[in-house]
Amino acid sequence: MNAGYTKEDVSAAFREIQTSICLGLEAIDGGEHFSRDEWQHHDGGGGLSRILTHGRVFEKGGVNFSAVEGRLPEFMKTRVNASATHFFATGVSLVMHPHSPLVPIVHANIRYFQTNAGDAWFGGGIDLTPIYVNVPQGKHFHQTLKATCDAHGADYYDRFKREADDYFFIPHRKETRGIGGIFFDYLSDKPNDRLVFDFVKAVGHTFINAYGPIAEENKALPYTEDQKKWQWIRRGRYVEFNLVYDRGTRFGLETGGRIESILMSLPEHASWFYNHQPHEQSPEAESSKYYNKGIDWVNL
Amino acid sequence: MNAGYTKEDVSAAFREIQTSICLGLEAIDGGEHFSRDEWQHHDGGGGLSRILTHGRVFEKGGVNFSAVEGRLPEFMKTRVNASATHFFATGVSLVMHPHSPLVPIVHANIRYFQTNAGDAWFGGGIDLTPIYVNVPQGKHFHQTLKATCDAHGADYYDRFKREADDYFFIPHRKETRGIGGIFFDYLSDKPNDRLVFDFVKAVGHTFINAYGPIAEENKALPYTEDQKKWQWIRRGRYVEFNLVYDRGTRFGLETGGRIESILMSLPEHASWFYNHQPHEQSPEAESSKYYNKGIDWVNL
Repeated sequence: MNAGYTKEDVSAAFREIQTSICLGLEAIDGGEHFSRDEWQHHDGGGGLSRILTHGRVFEKGGVNFSAVEGRLPEFMKTRVNASATHFFATGVSLVMHPHSPLVPIVHANIRYFQTNAGDAWFGGGIDLTPIYVNVPQGKHFHQTLKATCDAHGADYYDRFKREADDYFFIPHRKETRGIGGIFFDYLSDKPNDRLVFDFVKAVGHTFINAYGPIAEENKALPYTEDQKKWQWIRRGRYVEFNLVYDRGTRFGLETGGRIESILMSLPEHASWFYNHQPHEQSPEAESSKYYNKGIDWVNL
Repeated sequence: MNAGYTKEDVSAAFREIQTSICLGLEAIDGGEHFSRDEWQHHDGGGGLSRILTHGRVFEKGGVNFSAVEGRLPEFMKTRVNASATHFFATGVSLVMHPHSPLVPIVHANIRYFQTNAGDAWFGGGIDLTPIYVNVPQGKHFHQTLKATCDAHGADYYDRFKREADDYFFIPHRKETRGIGGIFFDYLSDKPNDRLVFDFVKAVGHTFINAYGPIAEENKALPYTEDQKKWQWIRRGRYVEFNLVYDRGTRFGLETGGRIESILMSLPEHASWFYNHQPHEQSPEAESSKYYNKGIDWVNL
């Protein structure tokens, strides 16, 4: 609480980031605009879900903002000071599912959590899920994230890239859900400092720099029905990750959050074909080689 | 172990039930046959996955048989005698996803578990997920299950129907996944007795009597694109249940089972539309009223 900013400063900055990201994504789409659904949390606070469906580029996607408070859930008690009874949490969370299998799915999230006992930390991440992996574009994505990280902490990119590899992983498939990015959690500012807050804002603002050029470059490329089928399969893996492993999704389902905002991350169509294996040396098989941890994208 | 039968008797009976169910479902389909994938478990034993895809009636479905053994997993230890170190488990598990939104999705499962310390029990269940609820057919389904239950235990249907209502429930949606059926677990035979084993076999054999007439009655009915869309949405809920809550699925994913056999329960296509609400008094809204616990289907 003795940071160089208030929780209102954080939620205001996050709300602004939500607006700026929506404008950036609308510019890429060139067709539809984000709708606005305001909602209240049963305990306190609420949020603004902004959803874009059936655009020119995006089939379905959403950029959620929320700022909620309430009694500390039982399972959070091991993470915070013993005297904590209430929490405040604010965040922006987005997932975009493009129509084209050549435009990657993208996810980003920034969040802040504090208790009435002085706990306070930030978390977040950005990761890319190309259906067809394009190496120069993957490099651009990671290099953009690295530049943002480097400006705030010399070891940030290496640490957070490794955490993303571990987090965005589907153990039962033994594969990552895409080509990763960055992931961080429990980052706290020192008293009267705001270095972490500045970093988290920079992550929010770098999103469109990392993703935009890739979406622009690929959005008008023609694609086939077979490529669409591969996209549905990869979206199925995305659903598996989100429903089985994603902490934010499971936290939301278990604490009675707004279902439509939590599950806006799921695609409009997904497929599961029994025992589907791409042909050797097909573009699908080649892409699958990149769904692995430990790839040095910046220097690939 | 001092039951009136051996574990080999159980797995042989289950294997026979798998064959007979596949024949019954092939007769309904009238087109495709079940493939056969034999597989080995890393610890011991294995299974036979029988999959039918792109038939006349069924888009995708599978009837799995397995008989595996190994070291007792850590999380099972509270459920069994303290001296148990190894387990044996055998079961048949099926899910069928028809093309037509007028033919219900169906699931059935029978299973047997024992340890080297004398623990032994059966579990299982059958439940129906109509996309459009047809009350006479729902009655037929429950009455068939009740007749089978009644022949083996006076309180079986009431108990197991209630357990199915509780089990096949999606808490975050506050709805059941369909119209229920029966569900039971931890049913053990007394020494030198085989009443429970006989009941479980009867459940396996009643499956086709409960489901077959419904599938036959509806399989040739014409349907619309809008009905298909509602099917995709309901299938999305099916995916949510299986990945978030189903014990068998989560057990399989956590213990490193054969992924393609575990996830054969997922449909070929499923959809998530943001904040979709059926129009009041539409057939979709009317069907949704039946996705609730506590409906007295036998006397409806």
